[in-house]
Order: sequence, then structure tokens, then C-alpha cells
Amino acid sequence: MVPLLIWEWPETAIIIAVTLLVAIIGRWILVRAIRGVVAGAIERSKKREAERPGVLARAAGLTHERHKQRTATMGSLLTNVATIVIVVIALLTILSAIGLPLGPLVASAGIGGVALGFGAQSLVKDYLSGLFMLAEDQYGVGDLVDTGECKGTVEEVTLRVTRLRDADGVIWYVRNGEIVRIANHSQGWSTAIIDLPVANDEAPAGVIAVLRTAMSNLVDEGTLADKLLDAPTVLGVDSITGNTMTLRITARCEPNQHWGVQRVIREKGQEALAAAGVRAPKYPGPPPTS
Amino acid sequence: MVPLLIWEWPETAIIIAVTLLVAIIGRWILVRAIRGVVAGAIERSKKREAERPGVLARAAGLTHERHKQRTATMGSLLTNVATIVIVVIALLTILSAIGLPLGPLVASAGIGGVALGFGAQSLVKDYLSGLFMLAEDQYGVGDLVDTGECKGTVEEVTLRVTRLRDADGVIWYVRNGEIVRIANHSQGWSTAIIDLPVANDEAPAGVIAVLRTAMSNLVDEGTLADKLLDAPTVLGVDSITGNTMTLRITARCEPNQHWGVQRVIREKGQEALAAAGVRAPKYPGPPPTS
Amino acid sequence: MVPLLIWEWPETAIIIAVTLLVAIIGRWILVRAIRGVVAGAIERSKKREAERPGVLARAAGLTHERHKQRTATMGSLLTNVATIVIVVIALLTILSAIGLPLGPLVASAGIGGVALGFGAQSLVKDYLSGLFMLAEDQYGVGDLVDTGECKGTVEEVTLRVTRLRDADGVIWYVRNGEIVRIANHSQGWSTAIIDLPVANDEAPAGVIAVLRTAMSNLVDEGTLADKLLDAPTVLGVDSITGNTMTLRITARCEPNQHWGVQRVIREKGQEALAAAGVRAPKYPGPPPTS
Amino acid sequence: MVPLLIWEWPETAIIIAVTLLVAIIGRWILVRAIRGVVAGAIERSKKREAERPGVLARAAGLTHERHKQRTATMGSLLTNVATIVIVVIALLTILSAIGLPLGPLVASAGIGGVALGFGAQSLVKDYLSGLFMLAEDQYGVGDLVDTGECKGTVEEVTLRVTRLRDADGVIWYVRNGEIVRIANHSQGWSTAIIDLPVANDEAPAGVIAVLRTAMSNLVDEGTLADKLLDAPTVLGVDSITGNTMTLRITARCEPNQHWGVQRVIREKGQEALAAAGVRAPKYPGPPPTS
Amino acid sequence: MVPLLIWEWPETAIIIAVTLLVAIIGRWILVRAIRGVVAGAIERSKKREAERPGVLARAAGLTHERHKQRTATMGSLLTNVATIVIVVIALLTILSAIGLPLGPLVASAGIGGVALGFGAQSLVKDYLSGLFMLAEDQYGVGDLVDTGECKGTVEEVTLRVTRLRDADGVIWYVRNGEIVRIANHSQGWSTAIIDLPVANDEAPAGVIAVLRTAMSNLVDEGTLADKLLDAPTVLGVDSITGNTMTLRITARCEPNQHWGVQRVIREKGQEALAAAGVRAPKYPGPPPTS
Amino acid sequence: MVPLLIWEWPETAIIIAVTLLVAIIGRWILVRAIRGVVAGAIERSKKREAERPGVLARAAGLTHERHKQRTATMGSLLTNVATIVIVVIALLTILSAIGLPLGPLVASAGIGGVALGFGAQSLVKDYLSGLFMLAEDQYGVGDLVDTGECKGTVEEVTLRVTRLRDADGVIWYVRNGEIVRIANHSQGWSTAIIDLPVANDEAPAGVIAVLRTAMSNLVDEGTLADKLLDAPTVLGVDSITGNTMTLRITARCEPNQHWGVQRVIREKGQEALAAAGVRAPKYPGPPPTS
Amino acid sequence: MVPLLIWEWPETAIIIAVTLLVAIIGRWILVRAIRGVVAGAIERSKKREAERPGVLARAAGLTHERHKQRTATMGSLLTNVATIVIVVIALLTILSAIGLPLGPLVASAGIGGVALGFGAQSLVKDYLSGLFMLAEDQYGVGDLVDTGECKGTVEEVTLRVTRLRDADGVIWYVRNGEIVRIANHSQGWSTAIIDLPVANDEAPAGVIAVLRTAMSNLVDEGTLADKLLDAPTVLGVDSITGNTMTLRITARCEPNQHWGVQRVIREKGQEALAAAGVRAPKYPGPPPTS
Repeated sequence: MVPLLIWEWPETAIIIAVTLLVAIIGRWILVRAIRGVVAGAIERSKKREAERPGVLARAAGLTHERHKQRTATMGSLLTNVATIVIVVIALLTILSAIGLPLGPLVASAGIGGVALGFGAQSLVKDYLSGLFMLAEDQYGVGDLVDTGECKGTVEEVTLRVTRLRDADGVIWYVRNGEIVRIANHSQGWSTAIIDLPVANDEAPAGVIAVLRTAMSNLVDEGTLADKLLDAPTVLGVDSITGNTMTLRITARCEPNQHWGVQRVIREKGQEALAAAGVRAPKYPGPPPTS
Repeated sequence: MVPLLIWEWPETAIIIAVTLLVAIIGRWILVRAIRGVVAGAIERSKKREAERPGVLARAAGLTHERHKQRTATMGSLLTNVATIVIVVIALLTILSAIGLPLGPLVASAGIGGVALGFGAQSLVKDYLSGLFMLAEDQYGVGDLVDTGECKGTVEEVTLRVTRLRDADGVIWYVRNGEIVRIANHSQGWSTAIIDLPVANDEAPAGVIAVLRTAMSNLVDEGTLADKLLDAPTVLGVDSITGNTMTLRITARCEPNQHWGVQRVIREKGQEALAAAGVRAPKYPGPPPTS
Repeated sequence: MVPLLIWEWPETAIIIAVTLLVAIIGRWILVRAIRGVVAGAIERSKKREAERPGVLARAAGLTHERHKQRTATMGSLLTNVATIVIVVIALLTILSAIGLPLGPLVASAGIGGVALGFGAQSLVKDYLSGLFMLAEDQYGVGDLVDTGECKGTVEEVTLRVTRLRDADGVIWYVRNGEIVRIANHSQGWSTAIIDLPVANDEAPAGVIAVLRTAMSNLVDEGTLADKLLDAPTVLGVDSITGNTMTLRITARCEPNQHWGVQRVIREKGQEALAAAGVRAPKYPGPPPTS
Repeated sequence: MVPLLIWEWPETAIIIAVTLLVAIIGRWILVRAIRGVVAGAIERSKKREAERPGVLARAAGLTHERHKQRTATMGSLLTNVATIVIVVIALLTILSAIGLPLGPLVASAGIGGVALGFGAQSLVKDYLSGLFMLAEDQYGVGDLVDTGECKGTVEEVTLRVTRLRDADGVIWYVRNGEIVRIANHSQGWSTAIIDLPVANDEAPAGVIAVLRTAMSNLVDEGTLADKLLDAPTVLGVDSITGNTMTLRITARCEPNQHWGVQRVIREKGQEALAAAGVRAPKYPGPPPTS
Repeated sequence: MVPLLIWEWPETAIIIAVTLLVAIIGRWILVRAIRGVVAGAIERSKKREAERPGVLARAAGLTHERHKQRTATMGSLLTNVATIVIVVIALLTILSAIGLPLGPLVASAGIGGVALGFGAQSLVKDYLSGLFMLAEDQYGVGDLVDTGECKGTVEEVTLRVTRLRDADGVIWYVRNGEIVRIANHSQGWSTAIIDLPVANDEAPAGVIAVLRTAMSNLVDEGTLADKLLDAPTVLGVDSITGNTMTLRITARCEPNQHWGVQRVIREKGQEALAAAGVRAPKYPGPPPTS
Repeated sequence: MVPLLIWEWPETAIIIAVTLLVAIIGRWILVRAIRGVVAGAIERSKKREAERPGVLARAAGLTHERHKQRTATMGSLLTNVATIVIVVIALLTILSAIGLPLGPLVASAGIGGVALGFGAQSLVKDYLSGLFMLAEDQYGVGDLVDTGECKGTVEEVTLRVTRLRDADGVIWYVRNGEIVRIANHSQGWSTAIIDLPVANDEAPAGVIAVLRTAMSNLVDEGTLADKLLDAPTVLGVDSITGNTMTLRITARCEPNQHWGVQRVIREKGQEALAAAGVRAPKYPGPPPTS
Repeated sequence: MVPLLIWEWPETAIIIAVTLLVAIIGRWILVRAIRGVVAGAIERSKKREAERPGVLARAAGLTHERHKQRTATMGSLLTNVATIVIVVIALLTILSAIGLPLGPLVASAGIGGVALGFGAQSLVKDYLSGLFMLAEDQYGVGDLVDTGECKGTVEEVTLRVTRLRDADGVIWYVRNGEIVRIANHSQGWSTAIIDLPVANDEAPAGVIAVLRTAMSNLVDEGTLADKLLDAPTVLGVDSITGNTMTLRITARCEPNQHWGVQRVIREKGQEALAAAGVRAPKYPGPPPTS
């Protein structure tokens, strides 16, 4: 709509020069800011490694290396995005300074942007969630996580999806934006919980004594020495319903080792109860505590 | 589109001067307002500490310190955001006063802003929720909270996510914006609730008397003296269904100590009932009150 | 983009003067309107106090005072918001009259506003809901309410969140905007509902007679005189399933006293049935009507 | 941005005059339209009253009066809203005709409007829903309604919330916009449904005959004469499962009287079955048809 | 902002004339299009009546009349809306041609429109859904429909809500936009499904033979002649679980008559089984197939 | 706002001519593109018919004809929409070229469009979903489909709703946009699954042998020859719970014939087990696998 | 609104030339970028094939070919979209340079775009999800996947929908945008899980020994040699409830072969237990672990 300004070129040339200058400086600032964030994330990862308790520290070197690599990748991606955005804006400004009618281009982009924006919002959400999950180092390849949608070992983390493999060998692709909360089972320990039902007319104190002895034997034998972090604790009577009295034992153990620990303690406990003549409940008890 | 105004510089210079002035004053007001809010939050935290009842007061000094640090961090973040926003606007105004065509820049930002806005809304929501939860001091590191998504001890509070560790040792990352309501179990006390089933043809008054005696013995022995805030109360018959009469005992105790208290009272109550010859229900009772 | 109008100052001065005049008058009208609404809310609160039945009237003076204070706070908040909005608009109008290029400022605010708007919508919703709940006096500190998310005694009401303490001593922070419906248990009375199972081959009329006698005895003894508003009513046979006939008794009582009342009536009713030789159901009955 | 047009006043004066004229005529038309709608609603209410069957007609005069008052209130509210909107627009048009720069005002209002619009949408929805529910006369004070969220007697209807009191004496505040469907139990009748279980080896025809006799006796005795609209109908065998044959009786009765009617019919039916020697099911039957 | 163009009236007059011409022609086209759609809907309704099978054809004349009336009402409503829209646009164009500053009016309408639009979207959705449901003739007054929210006989259909009365006499107001799918039980037939449990050691063939004889007797007796469309079919053994073998009988019958038909067939089937000495299951069977 | 350009008619005439030219060419291209898509869909339908296995091929000619008709209808609808859109745009461009002020028209349309857009989005979604489901030939009249909302035989497919008739004769209207996934039961085969419970102390191998013999007899007799695609397979022991061992038989059969096949195989299997003296489970087994 | 610029053609010609140049270069860059992405995806697919373990490698050549074809199709689609977008924008820019009033066209497109955008967002979401799922090679034709909505073998993957056939032969059409997470059962292995209930007074150690022997026999016999990846593992006692002790055996096997493996192991285990005289639980155990 405005006649080409290319003829009045001293001014046009100055505008183009200023535009290029601003673009170059802007990009330089952005790239430095991104590098700073990446370096900070690597620092934080290093520090967190150092803080991890007990057995978790073993894999620390490995994990840190993995994380460093990841943040580097993330940084280069962000640098690319920033460069593309700045080049496009500078280009448009120069075209506009020359006097090319940009109206249709901007209008098309606007309409297309809104039309796409509605449909693409879950895509943007996936990427932003992935970005923050990486930056916050919530989990990494090899961790056992529960995303709400499914539970498994992380096989690959990308900005859009996380790939898990569950206990049955099934591959899961979960979009990062759909992960409202994530549970990381590999940072810390697991707790084994064992419920043993007996008849409700047994004396609680006696049954507890039997189980305590069984547990201290179990520790003495060292059967679970490589899996247990503490000696198992006989908590006492967890519930009395119908003709069933349920006793609970708990034990802190290595991450994800609680299934096996639970089975061993259950067998030992049951054998001890049988040997001590403690009777089973006469009628079917309540449904198992899920 | 408009020729460079740089040549008509007296006016351009005045505009730039006024812009800078407004920017500096605006930033000064904003920073002061933020400091005021932060100081108010610290004041309120101090006051709330003073009001906390009983055993909770012990950790008060620690908690206040923690909170002070947190609000200071929050204040510096807000100051940074305000500074960036004001610098960007002042820069754009000056570029526009010089006569650089800003149309493409603003249009790109607008389209990008809308396109991102849809996807980033949950991100913004997370930050705003985090900001208000911090300002309102809803919970802090070390509190046991229930976010609806999961329940555990707070390990870290950031503006975007809250990190919890649950009873099984699992780490949970919960996005602040997804927390619709939060239950803080560490501000006050816990209530232990114990249900004991007996045969429904036992006389209620007799059974209640047996349990009352057992409870006063328990208090006399002082077994739970460090966990109980009040003596346990035998409320009476809570329900009669099928062949089961259920009696309920409650007891106020220290925060998060109710699981252990419940087990001890359940054992003592059951022993007292057995000793007094109160019969168990002949048939399986109702499912446990979940 | 437009040269500074500051030189053509007679017109500029007139615009500034008119702007200030309109701003001052506008603020005056708004503040008066807010005061009127606040005064109306206080009036309505006073009237409602006067209408509250029975025991609720006792706390009336206290409640009214509380409410007056609350609405005053609310009014001053609204006055502040109105003042800020008018000052900002007047400032922008004057800057524009002087000739400062406001385009970048407005564009930035617009983009930022939309970007924030999506994420902040739940925040605005919380505040608006809080405002209306306060204005409508739906509940106050000390009331027992059920917000759907949780149930407890209100400890604090702010414009954004409501703080409750439930029966177990847990603190709940509930965002006002998430409260779709609220149940106030402290405005009126509570109804105790007691279901008693007997064998289904007992004669209904006889069992009802036994229970009616027991209830009139209970009233005569005056055990629950300070909790009951009416004498308990034996409604009759509420259901017959399997081998169980269930009889229902109801009683209106003071707000939140129904748990205790239910236990006492259940014990007395069961004792009366036992004394009259009414047999219990031979087999486990249905699950309790929840 | 445009110099004040106040000096070229013949044209400015004409614009102002035309603006005022259009505003006055526009308001007059709107007010008349609102009055027409209100009058129509009152007419419709009167007509509906006349159509209500049986016992419902008694309260007709009262209800109509109530409704008339309500629609009048609604009309005055709408008139106020229309007046405010027209005054604001006329004022802005005149300010613009004088030459005041309205850009910042409109931009601020626009940004604020969008920012508020997202958060306030549920508020607007509440008001619009309330408006239409009032206009359509879906329920009034004193009706027993089920809003999906809760069920109770309407105590107050405002444009934003409906206040109910449920059978337990609890006050409920339900936002009108959240009411997707509403059930009005006070416009028509209620149906009592009684299920009686017998052993599945009883002859269906015999059992039905016993119950039919019992029901005709019940009608002859006139026990429920003031509650029943029709004589109870013995429908027959409703289901056969396990060892239980379930017979169903239904009866149309006055609105909300079906709980009491069900209890009486259940007692009479059970007594008749016992008297006729019909055996109860030998084993616990299925869960009650909910 | 632009001086009144009223003085340069030859051009202004031409613009006004063209505007009026375009408005009149536009309205004429719209009204004709609406009439065409309405006429088409009436045609379609007539045709569908003619296609309805069996007993449904009886009420055809009545239904068609009802539908004609409804579409006529709908057409007049659409004509009104079209007229109002065209008048408003023409008025605005003429005011703009005269030179009145319409900016503030349009801006106010825009902001108000967006603010309302968010809250009113469910309202618009209700009306649009109602419009299409009427045009597609999905149901009419007197049909028994299931809207997902509730099930009952249609008493009134408006563009915004549908009023139903359910089997218990309760009135339901359902917003049309909330009806995701609708089931019309009055267009076609109903299927009675009867499940009869027997001991799982009975010979399937024998039991089926007994039931087939019973069913053919039932048809011969003509008990259900006015309700059944086909003779009942004994499908065979539908499931074997625990100690129960369940046999299924189905029968096509008049719309909504299946409850009564099911009861009669169940009684006859049970009597036939008893007469033939087929034993009932020894233990309680599975829950009824819902 | 701009004086009529009609007087400077050489330019105006050229604009009008170019506009008409562009409109005619644009429409021609669009119509051709639509025809291409329609022709492609018909081609694809033809090809798919040819690929359908076994018995499904019988109805192929009929189905293809039906599909051809449908796509033709769809094509003509799209052509109409394209024509209307192009005519409206060309008209507006010419009016604008003549100099008519289109501002108010476009503003009204914009506000109305946004206001409607929110409410109409589910409508647009319905049409778009319908369009794609037709183009992808997901189902046709006569297919048995499961839309998630309901399951039945398709009676009519329109762009907005799909009309189904379920097994009970009820008509369902389902909006196309609400169909997230659709299951077409008529393209392929059905699988009959039969579970037979026996006592858990029976020898698995023996029971399986008995059933295998029974199944081969069934195939030899040819009872289900017209329904079965393969001989039934005795898979083995599907679960062991409590005192019940469940054996599973499966059989591929004609689409929708599995209910009848299941009943026949169940009867034959049960008879074979009874004849071989295999005992039923002593206690009620688990709930049926739903 | 602006007079045709076609007469001042030197400038117009330059604008057109620059526009065409920019369009051609832009398209060339986009096409190259698309080709790069496609080539990268093919590379990645090749690499992933190489990494697949064991039996999965067999189908590698086939899969890679399939994937290559798919990405090629995808690339040509993207190239088409990019070409159309660039042609439309270039056309609009040239029309605008000539001086044609594009306002109405852009406004129509804008309003239509917003109106469609709301309804079409799920469509755009489907396409974008499909695009990314293809690019990430989450699954291919022939894989067994679980989309949350349904589970089956992939028969066709398009950008909008995925077509599955489930185990019962039913065809499922699932929209890609609705797939929040996907489980691919064909990439890796499956785990067979077998639970065997025994009486809870059996000695755990003895029962486990019996099962271990049975499992090693099963491996020795080689019955499942072509399905098992590892020897089955007897994990131990998985739960003790009521009178039931449940033992668990697991086995890694070929993808999707676990149903058959489970049945064989269950039969062998049960036979071994019976042979060793291990008693079944006396009372019905818990419901099967679903």
C-alpha cells in the first residue's frame, strides 16, 4: 500500500543496519542466557548426585554424565529455536523497510496461527512439560517411574514423549504434557508391606512375639541382607474384622526390591505362625488391602 | 512505514527522555510494592509461628527462618521479572520513537504469544499457584501433605512443582497448578480411630465399660504418653449390621502418630474384650470402614 | 509516530484537564457504589442474624460483628482496585495527549495479558468466587461446611482460599473457585438416622412398639435433652432383604450433634430389642445403607 | 491524537444531539421489550398455575403471587443493566466527538475485559442460567428439587445461586450455572416402590394373591387415604435370583410422601405374607435394587 | 473523528439508498431460505410418519400435526432473528455514512461480546442443539426418551430445555446442549429379556424343552396378545457360574411394554419349571446381569 | 468514511472485473478439487469391497452403490458451501470497491461470529467429524457399530448425527463429534468365548479331552455349520480360583452370530461334562468374566 | 480503498518480482528441510531395526521397507501443504500490490477461521498427533497396540485415524489425537503371570518345591520351547488371605504368546500340586487379581 521506499535509500539503509545490529545483539544475549541456564542445570545435577544416599551413589558418575549430555542437547535445541525466531523477525523487518506489502503474509500467518493454535496446544504443552522435566531432572533413562498412565522403566526421554517399558515387557509412549504428577521409584528406597491374617481369638501379644522372633531369625540368617536397608518391623495388629485379625510387618529395602522381599518375609512369617500353632481365620477374611 | 524520525531529533530526544523517566519511576514503584508484599508475608509467618499450639511450637524458629529465606527468593524473582518487562517496553518505545518499523516484530510476538499461550497455560497456572501457595504459607519443607494426587512429606517447594516423598520412599513431582486442594497433616493434631467388632447379642453397656476400663489402664500405664494429647474416648456402638456390633474408640494424638496409636489401642482393647469373655461376631462382618 | 503535541499546548492542556476531571468524578461514583454494596451486605447480615432459629441465635452478636469487619475489609480492597485502575487509565490518556508513542506499551500489555489470561483464569475465578461467597454470607469462621473437596470447620476465609480443619485435625486449603456447591451444616439442625437390623420373621408391629417405648423412655430420662430438638421418631420398616428386616429411627438434633445422638439411640434401641427377645438376623444382612 | 474538535462546534453539537437522541430512543425500546418479556412470564405463570392437577392447586394463589414478585425484580434488574450500558456508550461517543483520546481507555478495558473474561465466565454462566431458570419458572421457593449436586427444599432463588435445605437440615448453596439438569419433585406426584423377597420355591400366583388381598384391605382401612392417589398395584415377580423371588408393589401418592407410604405397605405386605405362611428366602438374597 | 459527511449529501444519500436496497434484498433471500428449510422439515416429518411400523402408525396424524406446528414456530423465530440482525447492521451502516463516530459503540459491543461470549457459550450451545434436534425430528411431546441425564416422557420441547416426566412423576428440566446422545424408546419396539436360574446339574435340553412348551402355551392362551409382537424365544443357556445355570428368554413387544411382559413370562416360566421338577440353584447365584 | 469511488469508474470497473475473474477461477478450482476427492473416495470404496473376506463379499455390490450415492451427496454439499463462500467474498469486495462503508457489517459479523463460535464449536465439530467418517468409509447403513455411547445397527448417517437402533429396538441419535472411537462389528468376524466352571480337583487333561471330543462331535453334526468360520478351540484352563477351575473354548464365527454360537457350545459342553461325570465346583465361583 | 497502483507499474513490477523470488526461495528451503527430516526418520528407523533383540529381528527388513514407504508418503504430503501455503500467500501479496481491496477477503477468512478453529481443533490435533506418531515410529501395521480406548492389531495408520482389529475380529477406528498414551506389545517380550491358590495351612517351602520341579520338567519336555524366552520362575507366596495362599509363577515369552503359555503352565502346575497331595483352599478365595 505504501510506495517502495527503496529509492529513498539512505533512510532505508539505516533502518536495515539498525535492524541487523539489534538482531545480532539480541541473539547473542539469548544464546548466553540459554548457556547459563544449561550450565546451572548441570551444576545442580552434579550437586544432587553428591547428595544421593547409600546405594544410589554408586551410579552417580554415570547419571551425571547422562544428564550433562542431555542438557547440552537441550541447550543446542533452544539455541536453534532462538536463531530461527530472530532471523524470521529481522527478515520481515527488512522486507517491510524496503516497502514490500507484508499485510497478506502477516494476516495469513495470524489466521493460520490461531487455527493451528487450538489444535496444537497439546503439542506445545508436551514440549514445554518435557523441557521443564528435563531441566528439573525429574527422572532419567533407567529410572522406574509411575506416570499415572502407566508404570515402567524409562527407556528414552524426548521433549515430546517419554518411552517406558513396563514389567510385562510392553513399550509405552506417554506424552509429557499428560503427566500431571510423576512418581520416581528409583530415588531412595522401597517399603515392603506384609499383611498376615490369623484367627481373631488369638492373643495379639503372643502372635506379635512369634513374628518378632521370626524376623530377627531372618535377619540373622542374612537371607535378604543385600536387599534390606533395615531389619523388618512387626508393627502389630493392623485391623480386626469379622473373624480375622491382620498383622502387619514392614521393611525398608533397596528401590524396587520390595516384591521379592515381601514374598520371603510372608513365607517366613507364615511358617513361624504355623510352627507356633497360631490358627488361621476360620472364615474368609476381608478383601486384601489393595 | 513512517520515515525515520531521527532527523527531527529535538522531539525524538524528548520522547526518549520521558520514556526513560517513566520506566525508572515505574520500576522503582514496582520493586517497592514487591518488597512490601514480601515483608508482609514474613511478618505474617512470624505471627503464625507464635500461634501454633503445643509441640508444634518447638520447630518454630527453624520454620520461620526457612520461610523468611523462601520469601526473599520469591521477592528477588518478582523483581527480576518486573525489571525485564520494563526494559523490554522501554526499548520498544525508544525504537518506535526513532522510527524503526516495529510492526513485524509485534505481529510475530502476537502470533507466537497466542500460539504459545494455549500450550503454556498450564505452565503459567503452575507458577501462579506456586506463587500464591508460597505467599499464603500453606506448607513448607518437612510437612506431611496430601495433594489429592499423592500424600507424602514435602522435600522441596519450587514455583512450578512440589517434590514429595511418600511413606514407601517414592519421590513424587506434583505440578502446583494441579493441586486443587491441599491437606496439611502437620499443622495441629491427628485423630486415631479404632473400630472393634463384637457379637451383636452382647450388651452394649457391658462392652463399653470393659473398653473404658482398658483405656484408663492404658493411660495409667503411660504407654502412649508421648504420643497422646488426650485420653482415648470410647464413643459407643458405631454400627450394628448382620451379626456384628462395632464399637468405636477415638484419641487425639501428635500429628502423624495415629497409625501407631491405633495399633496399640486395638491390641489393648481386643485383649480386654477377650479377658472379659466378650464374644467375637459369629459371621464375617461388614467390610472395614475405609 | 505522531510528533509531540506538547507544543500546541492550549489544546493539550484542555485534554489533560478534562481527563483528570472525568477520572476524579468516575472514582467518586465507583467508591460510593462500593460503599453502598458493602452497607447493604452488612444490613442483610444483621437481618439474617435476627432470623436464625433457636440455639443459633446465641452467637448472633458475635457473628454480626465478624461479618461487619469482613465486609469492611472487602470494601477497602475494592476501593483500592478501582483507584489503581482509574489512575492507570488517566496516566495513559495524559501520556497519549502529550504525544508519547504508547503503541509498544499497549501491544506488550495486550500480548502479556492474553498469555497470562489463559493461565490466570483459575486465579481470577478463585477471587470472584470468594468475593461473591463473602457478599452472600454463605459461611463464616466457625461454621462446619462441606465443600465437596473436604469437610471441616472454617478457620479462615480469604478471597482466594478457604482454610478448614477437619475432624481428624488436618488443615485443608481449598481454592474458592473450585467450590461448586457448599453445604453449611451450622445453619439449622442435624438429623440423626439409626438403622437397626432384626430377623425378617419378627412381626413388624411388635418390634416397632418395642422401639417406640424405648424412645419415649429415653426422652423421659432426659439423657439427650440438651442435644435433641424433637423426640426421636420410629419410622418403621425401612427395608426387607435376605433374612434381615431393618427398622429406622430418626431424630432432629442440634447442628453436628447427630453422631453422638445416633450412638446413644442405637445402644438404647438394641438393649430394648434384646430385652424384648427380638431376634437378630440369622445371616449377615446387606451392606449398610451408605 | 486528533486535535480537539470542540472548536468546530456546529458539527460537534449535531453529533452530540444525534447521539443523545439515539440513546434515549434505544433505551425506550429496550425497556419496553423487557417489560413485554416480564409480562409474558407472569402470564405464563398464571396459566401454568391453573393447569396444575389436584392437591397442587391449593397453593396456586400463593405461588403466582411469589412468581409475579420475582419477575418484577428480574425486570427491574434488566432495566438497570440496559440503562447503564446505554449511558456508558453514549458518554464514550460524546467524549470521542469532543476529541478526547479514548484509545488508552478502550485498550485498558479490552485487555482487562479479556483477562477477566476467562476467569468470570463461570460467573456470567451462573447469572445467565439463573435468568433463564427464573424466566422458565422451573422451580420456586418451597419446591423439593434435585440439582444433581444435592437434593432439598428451595429456600431462596437468586440469579447466581440457589439455596436449598436438605432432609438432614443442611443448607446448600448451589451455583445456577452448575445445574445441568434439575428434577422438580413438587410438580406432580411420587411413586412408592416396594420390593418383598420370598423363597424362590413359592408359587408366584399364590403369593401375588396374598399381596393383592392385603393391598385391598389396606385401601379399605383407609390408612393411607390422604397420601395415596391410586390403590397400590401388585406388579408381580420382579426378579428371580439365587434362592430369592422378589415381588414388586407400586403406588402413586402425593409428592414426597412415598417414603412413608413405602414403609406402611412394606409392613402390611410382610405381615400378610407371614400370616399366609409364605416362607422367606433361605439364603441371603441379592443386593437391593438401587 | 471524521467531520460529518451529512453536508456532502448526494454521496451520502446514495450510500444510504444502496444500504437499504441490499438490506431488503438480503432479508428477502434469508426469509425464503428459512421457509424452504421449514417446508422441507415438514415434508420429511410427513414421510417419516408414513414409514412408521405397526401400532405406531395410529398416532401418525396427530404427530404430524404437532410437528408442523413446531416447525412453523421455529421458522417464525428464525425470521425474527434474521430481521433484527439485518436492521441492526443497516442502521449502523447508515449512522456511519452520516458520519457519527461508531468506534466507542463497536468497541463496547466487542468487549461486552467477548466477556459475555465465554459465559454464554453453553446458552448458545443449548439453542443450537435444540434447533437441530427439532429440525431432525429426534423426538416429540409424548415420546419416552433417555437423555443420559434422566429418562422419561417428553412433556415440552423448547429451543433451550426439554421437560420430561419420569416414571416416578418427577419433572426434569434438561438443557438441550447437554444431551450428547438421546435414546427414543417410542420409535419401534421393546425387547423383554427374562433370565431364569436353575441348578447347574440339570440337563440343558430338558429345561429348554419345558420352557419352550410354557412359552407356546402362553401364546396359545393369548395372555399377552396385545403386547407381544412375536412369540417369545427361549434362547438357551446364557451362562453357567458356580452352581447356577441361567436360561434366557426374549420377546419383542410394543414400545415400553416390556416390564409387564417380563413379569408375566417370568411367572409362567417359573411355574413351568416348578411343575416339571426342575431344581433351583443350591447356592446363591451371581448378581443379576444388569 | 471514504467518498464513493463510483465516479472514478475506470479503476472501479477494473477492480470489479478482476474480482469476478478471480472468483470464477477460484470456484472452478475448488469444485474440481472436491470432485477429485469424491472420485477418490468412490475408488477406495470399490477397492475395499473387493478385499472383504468370505461372506462379507456377498453384500459388496449393494454396499458400493450405497457408498457411491453417499459420496455424491457429500460432494454436492461441499460444492454448495464453496459457492456460497466465494459469492459472499466477491460481493463484499465489489461493495468495498464501490465505496460502501463495510466497517459496521464486518464488525457485527466479527462480534457475532465470536459469540456464536464458542457455542457452535460442538456443532462444527460434529459436521467435520461426520465429513471425515464418511470420507474414510468407517461404517455404513446396516453395520453393527459400537460408538462408546451406545451399540446398535446404523439406520441413517448424516453429517451431524448417526442414528442407530439397538438390540432392544431403541432408536439412538449420537452426535458425530462425540464419537471418539468407533467399533465396527460388521467388517470381519466375531469370536465366541465360552467359559465352563468345574471343580478344581478335576484333572485338567481329562476335562480338556472331554471338551475336545464334544467340540469335534459338534462340528461333525454340522449344527453350527452356517455360523462357524473355524472349528471351536478348547484353549485349556483359563483360571483357578477358590474351588473353581474354569475352562475356555473359543470359536471364530460370522459377524454378530457369537451370542447364539456361545449358547449352543455352552449347552453341548455342559452336557458332555455331565455325561463324563466331571463335577461342578462345590462352592460359588468367581463373578463371571465381564 | 486505495486507487489501483497498476499504473505506477515500475514499482509494482519490482514488488511482484521480489515476492515471487522470496516465494520460490522459501519453498525451496522448506522442501529441503522436509526432505532432511524424512531422511533422518528413515535413518533412525533403520538403526532401531538393527537394535531390536532376538526374534524381533526376523521381521526387520520388512518393517524397515514399510517405514521407508510411510515416511516418503508423509514427506510428499508435507511438501504439498508447504507449496499450497506459499502459493496462497504469494498470490495475496501480488493482488495487494496490484491494488485489489483484500480487506473483505481477509476479514471473511479471519471470521471463518475463528469460527472453524474452535470446531476444528480436535481435527488439527488428530493430524498433528498422527504426524508425530509416524515421525517417532511408535507403531506400525501389524503391531499389537493398546490405545487406552481399545486394544488390537494395527491394520492401517493414517494421519487422522488408526484402524485396529481386536481379538474378537472387531474393527476399531481411533482418532490419533485421542491417544494419550500407547502401549506397543510387539516391541520386546510378554510376561506370563500364573497364580495358583492352595490351602493356607500348607507349608510354603514344600509347595514351592513341588512347583519348581514341575517347571523344570516342563522346560525339559520342551513343550513351550518355541514360546518361552526364559525358564519359568516360581516367585513364591504372593498373598495370604482368608483360607487361601496364592503362589505366583512368571515366565518371559514371545510377544503376545503369554495367554497360551499361562494356560499350559497353569495346567502343569495344578497337576503337579494334585499329584503331590497339596490341598486346595477350603473356602472360596479372593477375587482373581485383575
